[in-house]
Amino acid sequence: MESTHPPAPVSGQAGTAVWNVRVYYEDTDSAGVVYYANYLKFMERARTEWLRGLGFEQDRLATQEGILFAVRSVALDYLRPARFNDSLQVRTSVQRPGRVALVFRQLVLRCGEAERPLCVGRIKVACISAHSYRPHPLPSEILARLTSDR
Amino acid sequence: MESTHPPAPVSGQAGTAVWNVRVYYEDTDSAGVVYYANYLKFMERARTEWLRGLGFEQDRLATQEGILFAVRSVALDYLRPARFNDSLQVRTSVQRPGRVALVFRQLVLRCGEAERPLCVGRIKVACISAHSYRPHPLPSEILARLTSDR
Amino acid sequence: MESTHPPAPVSGQAGTAVWNVRVYYEDTDSAGVVYYANYLKFMERARTEWLRGLGFEQDRLATQEGILFAVRSVALDYLRPARFNDSLQVRTSVQRPGRVALVFRQLVLRCGEAERPLCVGRIKVACISAHSYRPHPLPSEILARLTSDR
Amino acid sequence: MESTHPPAPVSGQAGTAVWNVRVYYEDTDSAGVVYYANYLKFMERARTEWLRGLGFEQDRLATQEGILFAVRSVALDYLRPARFNDSLQVRTSVQRPGRVALVFRQLVLRCGEAERPLCVGRIKVACISAHSYRPHPLPSEILARLTSDR
Repeated sequence: MESTHPPAPVSGQAGTAVWNVRVYYEDTDSAGVVYYANYLKFMERARTEWLRGLGFEQDRLATQEGILFAVRSVALDYLRPARFNDSLQVRTSVQRPGRVALVFRQLVLRCGEAERPLCVGRIKVACISAHSYRPHPLPSEILARLTSDR
Repeated sequence: MESTHPPAPVSGQAGTAVWNVRVYYEDTDSAGVVYYANYLKFMERARTEWLRGLGFEQDRLATQEGILFAVRSVALDYLRPARFNDSLQVRTSVQRPGRVALVFRQLVLRCGEAERPLCVGRIKVACISAHSYRPHPLPSEILARLTSDR
Repeated sequence: MESTHPPAPVSGQAGTAVWNVRVYYEDTDSAGVVYYANYLKFMERARTEWLRGLGFEQDRLATQEGILFAVRSVALDYLRPARFNDSLQVRTSVQRPGRVALVFRQLVLRCGEAERPLCVGRIKVACISAHSYRPHPLPSEILARLTSDR
Repeated sequence: MESTHPPAPVSGQAGTAVWNVRVYYEDTDSAGVVYYANYLKFMERARTEWLRGLGFEQDRLATQEGILFAVRSVALDYLRPARFNDSLQVRTSVQRPGRVALVFRQLVLRCGEAERPLCVGRIKVACISAHSYRPHPLPSEILARLTSDR
């Protein structure tokens, strides 16, 4: 498969946040595997928890800073299927923080199979105004945390 | 099974609206059947189209009349499972229109099996203010259409 | 609202399992609240974790015991809305264990608001054969755990 | 935004199938727009209907031919948001039919805004054995239809 983002070694990088996800029936489909769109749910949960781990709550960013995050593009490779009741791990790192957008690299793995990701994603997220929906500079506190965290 | 709302004969009632739904992978789970929460999606699609069929668009009701519909209670009996690629029919009727709430009876059937519903629901929906989220009288035009339609 | 299962006091019952759920964007809708079908997802996650807490994994029950659990009926009252980023708690108790079916009472609350549930449900789940989909007696180990747990 | 697949003119291509999708509450999130994962649902519905339009039902392909389709990779650009109650159109074309995989180009547009897609996707789907989940040659009838259709 021609992949634009081949799986890299995933263990032990600096700046990689880990979030665990359990696969419930709601996540699966009748082919017996996790439905392909649902990896985007897992990845967003992990990005949300990554941001919370840095000290930022998105509901407060919306009401106090007037900003939202909007996904601009996603690219996912599905390498192996996850199944009902699997215990998964989402590994999240910021590849490239910009002034208004962040590019995330996210891996979904089965717990205990750290070298063989199931799904690899590159997600570009832009900061936008909650009012105009136009691009808005990332809050400087977030950028500062991202820079210090690397 | 002790059912609080046993299936009644479903064909040919006055005032019953019919909406077709196809089962895609997104609707199923790894037990090979439609995931139980997704019948509520099918039923909401059917209620939305029923309302549209009466001439009311919910986005305009929100912006122009300042009202939303909020589900207050649901009671569903799951009688037989639907499966991937099934062609389903949702039959919707208003059991009891009130001043601020409507009680719907909705049946989900497989096309061509009209006498044996898969899922039977009773859904209570209230009209609320889009601003205060408090109960709000149903627009008189809707009540008039409901009364004339019966 | 005429409710068939009015909220009872929820704190401190023997035999009540608690599972925490975070509300992500995936759970909400454009009315600004958790979409009504998604409470059924939260409740199923909590039932799954309740069963896991008793020592039973559903994937092993399917492959080794040849059984699945199928929801037969649900009745939910929506009392107050949950919102994006809320930290919720699902409280699960078995009201009535039978030979082939269990009746659950489940409450969804916002953390820190223990006396005011957002959603109250009664969910009837039957044990079925994974092969014939016919009713199947609950494994005696599960019934024993349920009885000893009360 | 650096896009790996910039929007091309979308009207009037030979071999483009069109499928209409209505946006319901289930599809939206509390940011007021269609949740980003749900475009993958819309696109799969459109691919399913494209295949049905060619004369192939996926449930029969699974039981009679022993094959499934598995998504190998997706790349989506989100250009503008869709909203509640929007009437959308998914335009589906096969960019490159291979022996075991198909690469689709899919556009999601708001009806009546044909020149300005909301979301553009490139989806690679492989044919796999329903038993081994290994790659499996596409049925020759499907390849024949794809070739004749272009």
